[in-house]
Amino acid sequence: MYIQRHFKMLEKECFKMLKKHSFGQLITSFNDQITQTYVPFIIDQNNACLYGHIAKQNRQIECLQNSDDLTVTFLGSDAYISPNWYGSPDQVPTWNYQAVEIKGKATLLDNDGTLKVIVGLSQIHESQFEVPWTIDKMSNKKLNAMLRAIVGFRIDIIEMNGQSKLSQNKNIEDRQSVIKGLGTTKEQASHRIAELMNEEIEP
Amino acid sequence: MYIQRHFKMLEKECFKMLKKHSFGQLITSFNDQITQTYVPFIIDQNNACLYGHIAKQNRQIECLQNSDDLTVTFLGSDAYISPNWYGSPDQVPTWNYQAVEIKGKATLLDNDGTLKVIVGLSQIHESQFEVPWTIDKMSNKKLNAMLRAIVGFRIDIIEMNGQSKLSQNKNIEDRQSVIKGLGTTKEQASHRIAELMNEEIEP
Repeated sequence: MYIQRHFKMLEKECFKMLKKHSFGQLITSFNDQITQTYVPFIIDQNNACLYGHIAKQNRQIECLQNSDDLTVTFLGSDAYISPNWYGSPDQVPTWNYQAVEIKGKATLLDNDGTLKVIVGLSQIHESQFEVPWTIDKMSNKKLNAMLRAIVGFRIDIIEMNGQSKLSQNKNIEDRQSVIKGLGTTKEQASHRIAELMNEEIEP
Repeated sequence: MYIQRHFKMLEKECFKMLKKHSFGQLITSFNDQITQTYVPFIIDQNNACLYGHIAKQNRQIECLQNSDDLTVTFLGSDAYISPNWYGSPDQVPTWNYQAVEIKGKATLLDNDGTLKVIVGLSQIHESQFEVPWTIDKMSNKKLNAMLRAIVGFRIDIIEMNGQSKLSQNKNIEDRQSVIKGLGTTKEQASHRIAELMNEEIEP
């Protein structure tokens, strides 16, 4: 991923984004063929790895461990930036966004490992609810059927890079007027970009 | 992209999604190395092609025309689906989303072509505003500096596949209770998934 110097994220900033935007894209290259699957990931910062699972019928499994290159990407919020929003004249349209790219090595998990991925993912996403769903609500029959249909995997992170494109190359006044412009749109993603831009100005 | 039979999108459904979610990801494979860049695209349905531009400093340009495989992906809305939301018992957590994958062939554009991409992109994204920005607001100096920094490209679509995972494999009552559950969250993306699920039930 090409990253302009103003926009490079620190490792801790990457992990902060990943914890909010963990629905990523598993991309593999095998025999010059790109295969990709959207996957909800568990981000294990302490052990520098990711966990996920895919359908056994998904042929990406065949190349997961033998991939010539394995990349996982995550897009945070993104928003169009109108040149009209800047205070300064003579501006160019652009797109602000945060994105993290991980290069890694995959290992397939056994049934116990895959079950832990399911439990971990549900704990993360159910924590927003007053009465979280837990895996004991599933019958053994259903659980076994699910485990027969999917394969869990771990991806050890070899390299991680993040781009946080938030108009850091503009002066404070222009950044503040862009924040205001983003606030006038109806897009939650644009409002989130405005919040991130604000955090950059007043950390 | 592995697509379960319930979820396969028709070509017209793919284009419908692409017109709303045109901030995509350009993925190339060259000498067994995956490179990817997030890019705002122009979707030209009539001519079955995409247009975009990237920074000249982005080394992905080198492999754009010689890529062993070139894939462009677009993610529509996405949302976690809690098993607690279904009326029926014994359910599995899942993720609903729409995504389109395009395999294509890239051609780099000259300055005139690149300028047309800039004009086209700004027309698309400025149409939401009362007073849209137009390229004549830029000085010639700025315009030329921009054209020196970027390269436009066209991607002719060879193959397009879309996945619309909206619980179509569940009964109507369960789908309706999931729609209700999505409505209780604060995420605009979840609300959009609810709308799409509703359109599936009552087209």
